[in-house]
Amino acid sequence: MSAAQHLSDDDLAKIYTFAVQLGKDAGVILMKFAQARWSDNGSGAQLFTEKDSAVDIVTKADEDVETFIKNAIEKKYPTHKFLGEETYSKGASQDYLIGDEPTWCIDPLDGTVNYTHLFPMFCVSIGFIVDGRAVIGVIYAPFTAQLFSACRGRGAWLNETQRLPLRDQPLPPNAPQGCVLSVEWGKDRKDAPDGNLHRKVDSFLNMAVEPGGRGGKGGMVHGVRSLGSATLDLAYVALGAFDIWWEGGCWEWDVAAGVAIVQEAGGLVTTANPPADVKNAPIEDVRLGSRLYLAIRPAGPSPATGESARESQERVVREVWRRVRHLDYSRPGA
Amino acid sequence: MSAAQHLSDDDLAKIYTFAVQLGKDAGVILMKFAQARWSDNGSGAQLFTEKDSAVDIVTKADEDVETFIKNAIEKKYPTHKFLGEETYSKGASQDYLIGDEPTWCIDPLDGTVNYTHLFPMFCVSIGFIVDGRAVIGVIYAPFTAQLFSACRGRGAWLNETQRLPLRDQPLPPNAPQGCVLSVEWGKDRKDAPDGNLHRKVDSFLNMAVEPGGRGGKGGMVHGVRSLGSATLDLAYVALGAFDIWWEGGCWEWDVAAGVAIVQEAGGLVTTANPPADVKNAPIEDVRLGSRLYLAIRPAGPSPATGESARESQERVVREVWRRVRHLDYSRPGA
Repeated sequence: MSAAQHLSDDDLAKIYTFAVQLGKDAGVILMKFAQARWSDNGSGAQLFTEKDSAVDIVTKADEDVETFIKNAIEKKYPTHKFLGEETYSKGASQDYLIGDEPTWCIDPLDGTVNYTHLFPMFCVSIGFIVDGRAVIGVIYAPFTAQLFSACRGRGAWLNETQRLPLRDQPLPPNAPQGCVLSVEWGKDRKDAPDGNLHRKVDSFLNMAVEPGGRGGKGGMVHGVRSLGSATLDLAYVALGAFDIWWEGGCWEWDVAAGVAIVQEAGGLVTTANPPADVKNAPIEDVRLGSRLYLAIRPAGPSPATGESARESQERVVREVWRRVRHLDYSRPGA
Repeated sequence: MSAAQHLSDDDLAKIYTFAVQLGKDAGVILMKFAQARWSDNGSGAQLFTEKDSAVDIVTKADEDVETFIKNAIEKKYPTHKFLGEETYSKGASQDYLIGDEPTWCIDPLDGTVNYTHLFPMFCVSIGFIVDGRAVIGVIYAPFTAQLFSACRGRGAWLNETQRLPLRDQPLPPNAPQGCVLSVEWGKDRKDAPDGNLHRKVDSFLNMAVEPGGRGGKGGMVHGVRSLGSATLDLAYVALGAFDIWWEGGCWEWDVAAGVAIVQEAGGLVTTANPPADVKNAPIEDVRLGSRLYLAIRPAGPSPATGESARESQERVVREVWRRVRHLDYSRPGA
């Protein structure tokens, strides 16, 4: 009997309600720390002394929010496993730790650089995983007051009131044309011709240039976006705003909640790296620990092509695979 | 006697109040049209028939908002000149039309691709120009409920309550390291080695790679962001979230409001294209019609380097110029 079978629909609904409130409360803490750094705003000044640097404050926000979430979960669900970014960074290895048991997978602050710079694209990310699959996701970006959430079987939502996706038009018949592509430059900035940065930028260029360009790989996407938050990239895929998100290097705490929300909204998440047979290889759901992600937004069936939603998403996956290079991210020890 | 001298501080304050309300009202219209496209939301359905396409709706939103703004201004200030994106696109040329007289320069919808895709980074942009200088700016992004505004001598504001910049820490002594760079891929996607897309991506790479990389040009910026809205790029420079915005190709209606807000917040806006003598060339305020923009965020003086705010901004301008290529955007007939 799998762990999931111990959790009834009613259990899951209660866990979902708890997770949504936890996300809101964590977001309030993040904003309190952010506001403490605003130039002409004394509201949070008493939290810090003059000599605390921006980096100190951000580290404290990150740690305080993770502790807050961890304590709340341990009190409410003492038998559940807890994995946070801090759990990993303080551990000896970054082995993949998610098994079959009910597991919380948390990023207290995704978009750390944005948070440091007070760019609003930062959030808290709370994922709940059973049998290795993300079944509940809560993402809250407090500066723009956008809450994304989903629970398996209960739909995906913006601010608990608007069902996701907001946009589920058919995927364009000539995709990636007409698509908005979301990508990230990441932290790996080595100037090596075969390093990840150059592999990424080659791939971005293939997706962006005019049709026929780049040796026939030109994808002429409608737009290229970079937010600096993998978690919010996934949230905007679930919303329908980003048609394609392609990225390597994230960890499971960056994506657990987002994958749950995208999948519940009707999107597809598979691997970023093209297989040998791009045209025919089976398209499998991504493994959370893979560090390589390609997400396609929810879409209605395509009257123009006669495809089902899934067929059109798989077509777009293959069109992306045809244009991108392999990325070289693995797990330590993997 | 210049036109500006006809406008007292009190006159300007009244125009500012009027412009802020106009921005809020225009944003409400934009959101009404956006919501009419949401999948499971019938609230605006009566506005459109089944056969209206997404493109029809976006075009109608754009035109309706421009007409709304134009009518309101003509009624309240019949002697003022009005320039909107539609004015240009329907005109015979794209000559630079801004002179010394009081002039409204409007983009009813900046971030059109985002709006089509329901990605929240779209906005209305209202600039008021006197003697060729943007003196009032109002930018409202209704989906994230963020209103940016400024009036010469009255400060720059987020949501009318938080003074901009929110973040005015000294610019990093080793900038562009530590800086968030905002750039856009744009619509020019020709696969020509010397085309604007390749010039841009070369420049992005120089700014992004590790120090010492790319023949010594590696800038190792903290992050690279692309929002798909020049107007909001400038808004986030004014806030302090983006340290550097470098872009070519926009028109004056994309930037008039943003330039007013950045300058009033204490930021610097000059040209994107490096001069022959990068080290010593004077750094002049940008001309609104130039189509080439480099903005540096507001910053406090740097105790570490002994620089004034302006000196540190000029240092960063030169560090950017050293790493970017010339972009080839001109005005028709210029």
